[in-house]
Amino acid sequence: MNSPVTTAVLAAARAAKDAQPVLARLHRGAKDQLLLAMAEALVERAEEIVDANARDLAAADAAGIAPGLRDRLALDVARVEAISHQLRDAAALPDPIGEVIRGSVLDNGLELREVRVPMGVIGMVYEARPNVTVDAAGLALKAGSAVVLRGGSAALHSNTALIGVLRDVLVGRGLPADLIVGIDEHGRDGVDVLMRARGLVDVLIPRGGAGLIRRVVEHSRIPVIETGTGKTHVLIDASADLDQAVDIVANAKLQRVGVCNALETLLVHRDIAEEALPRIAVPLAEAGVRLHADETAAALLTAAGAAAEVVPATAEDWDTEYLALELAVAVVADLDAALDHIRAHSTGHTESILTRDLTSQQRFLVEVDSAVVMANASTRFSDGGEFGFGAEIGISTQKLHARGPMGLREITASKWLMVGQGHVRP
Amino acid sequence: MNSPVTTAVLAAARAAKDAQPVLARLHRGAKDQLLLAMAEALVERAEEIVDANARDLAAADAAGIAPGLRDRLALDVARVEAISHQLRDAAALPDPIGEVIRGSVLDNGLELREVRVPMGVIGMVYEARPNVTVDAAGLALKAGSAVVLRGGSAALHSNTALIGVLRDVLVGRGLPADLIVGIDEHGRDGVDVLMRARGLVDVLIPRGGAGLIRRVVEHSRIPVIETGTGKTHVLIDASADLDQAVDIVANAKLQRVGVCNALETLLVHRDIAEEALPRIAVPLAEAGVRLHADETAAALLTAAGAAAEVVPATAEDWDTEYLALELAVAVVADLDAALDHIRAHSTGHTESILTRDLTSQQRFLVEVDSAVVMANASTRFSDGGEFGFGAEIGISTQKLHARGPMGLREITASKWLMVGQGHVRP
Repeated sequence: MNSPVTTAVLAAARAAKDAQPVLARLHRGAKDQLLLAMAEALVERAEEIVDANARDLAAADAAGIAPGLRDRLALDVARVEAISHQLRDAAALPDPIGEVIRGSVLDNGLELREVRVPMGVIGMVYEARPNVTVDAAGLALKAGSAVVLRGGSAALHSNTALIGVLRDVLVGRGLPADLIVGIDEHGRDGVDVLMRARGLVDVLIPRGGAGLIRRVVEHSRIPVIETGTGKTHVLIDASADLDQAVDIVANAKLQRVGVCNALETLLVHRDIAEEALPRIAVPLAEAGVRLHADETAAALLTAAGAAAEVVPATAEDWDTEYLALELAVAVVADLDAALDHIRAHSTGHTESILTRDLTSQQRFLVEVDSAVVMANASTRFSDGGEFGFGAEIGISTQKLHARGPMGLREITASKWLMVGQGHVRP
Repeated sequence: MNSPVTTAVLAAARAAKDAQPVLARLHRGAKDQLLLAMAEALVERAEEIVDANARDLAAADAAGIAPGLRDRLALDVARVEAISHQLRDAAALPDPIGEVIRGSVLDNGLELREVRVPMGVIGMVYEARPNVTVDAAGLALKAGSAVVLRGGSAALHSNTALIGVLRDVLVGRGLPADLIVGIDEHGRDGVDVLMRARGLVDVLIPRGGAGLIRRVVEHSRIPVIETGTGKTHVLIDASADLDQAVDIVANAKLQRVGVCNALETLLVHRDIAEEALPRIAVPLAEAGVRLHADETAAALLTAAGAAAEVVPATAEDWDTEYLALELAVAVVADLDAALDHIRAHSTGHTESILTRDLTSQQRFLVEVDSAVVMANASTRFSDGGEFGFGAEIGISTQKLHARGPMGLREITASKWLMVGQGHVRP
């Protein structure tokens, strides 16, 4: 692969790597001033950014973009201002760098400390959402890392304009522009090169749909933090408080439908299903949710004359992240059956049990092997903001390095410092 | 890839995954009893293991194995006993599982805790060293994970015998044998399948030579912890205590030559080089170390009539991990030049500065981006045992998840527990 794209993307990644040590030496005050200056510059140059975005929108309209995607792509001055606030928010967060994670004086007098340090160069691959460009750059800078950004061809002009503004601020403050590099112009081939940039990029974080994430995870030769896919389960246990259950299920499914922590499969204990299902169905039916029910659930819903649209669940339903007004529903014989179902079908994102029984709660919390395991709460709380992280880079569904919502701390690394006085090993 | 090897290796990995939840539910006492029973069984059945090893040795001798490799492969009853002690040592370590890493009650009353949990299934790929088979299995079990072991074809009979003993103990105690599975019989193809066993194996840890590690890192589709390669640097700063420097360099190079934390490149500040180099050379020459010196270092050594064998350094010397009685030596103009050299040639394992100057020490500790950064100590201290971890799985040279020496804690994961009382997100 010695194409011009390879040369260009590797050069961009190397430039980011070479620039990063300057950033690593900045203390919090300087980093926060930088982020605030970037926020100001975005607002000042909002017209220019909106103009660039208009070119992306025109191309997207010509290509017949879906309304939802168009909305995520579109910028106006108010949205640019909102984006600039992400940088102000990042500035307000504590600096994760320099934290002493652990330390001790060894028997032989060697002083040992593990300290938090920048990751180095972070590669971000995402879909056409210009706000992610600024958010990712701001959080990476705050965490001391340079970023290589690849944000989807549909947002090429918008991202180029945004990155241009941020780079101008870097240069204006005597810092290397290459702390933030964009590789959108190189298209998909650029991502392929980035995924092989061993020694230049320390970690790759894909944010977006399942297809994008799968492609990065399967082809990357540099470490990846897998984010996102949430086939999220709620179990209504036999002892659940049904009033709470109705509210939690409605909240988990409806509060925001297209996100990874939204409910996708409802499991109901056999002993409570006859009473629970018709009640649960009411708010769901009102919102237009279609229930993909297993045979038992469908029979109970029909017998109760539930208003909801009920279709028979197929095998795929148990593994589908709908991100839509659809919900898989199954009746389970007991807690063990529920745990088995979750073990077989969960993507390891978030699951919640609704119960008043201590043993059921305890078993569920211990035995479910997901990033976030809940009791008596809506899955929508599986979120970096709700966790108090102040910012969220994504939700990791892998076990290595970071699991669950990722804040600034989760995009840092550590190193060991050892100080002796002439120590040699006997 | 639907070969019989694919089927067999995926079945083995799935069996390990299915067995693991049973282990995850064992508390420390039960895990420690299990490890002690395994240690006893190894000693009881030592003859059987030594017999199996004899078959490996015969094959290795017929193939003309190098003496160093033969020594690592060979077992006798005393060595089996030594191996059994690794299990007793693992039993004596604190249990990492269940630790509450952090936690709080959120503003809305939700209780949030991050707890340490087993990784799940750990794949270990290593070279023909039967002791690693037992060590890896013991540490993984203690950390609550099942293991898939691939230990090099040359140790096939030894590993099969060892794994057989350990599995018999599992079964004898009513536990699933598949908590420990070996895939040696499937050869290199087995490793290729294992590296693609997404969803079955949570992390792959290669231990061994640079070639093995590179192959795993480049081809794996599951998360990898990269270990091992150490192009380790010591910098003798202008202000170094030369008596200490002579001892530390000799210790770092000679205390154990073939290991990843042994010294491979010596950098000497220009202002002290004329005095330092001849003195440093004395113990190295006595031990038969050949110095690959840059022009300045070579001239100074020759002028001083140093006894050591000096050859001109080539470009490759700055990037070669010798693991032998060879040492690259360069004179550097100042600290910046040393930092540049390290940035260009370090593998990110361990580097040490010898200095009496506070600014030099501070800059070196902050600016060198390696797993372990030292001042005034031998690089040989970069070791899990020396760090007080009690056991070492390897030394991670990547930034994700674990960096530097890895103990039990570094082969665990975490998950978040969230407990509410009917909480819904507003």
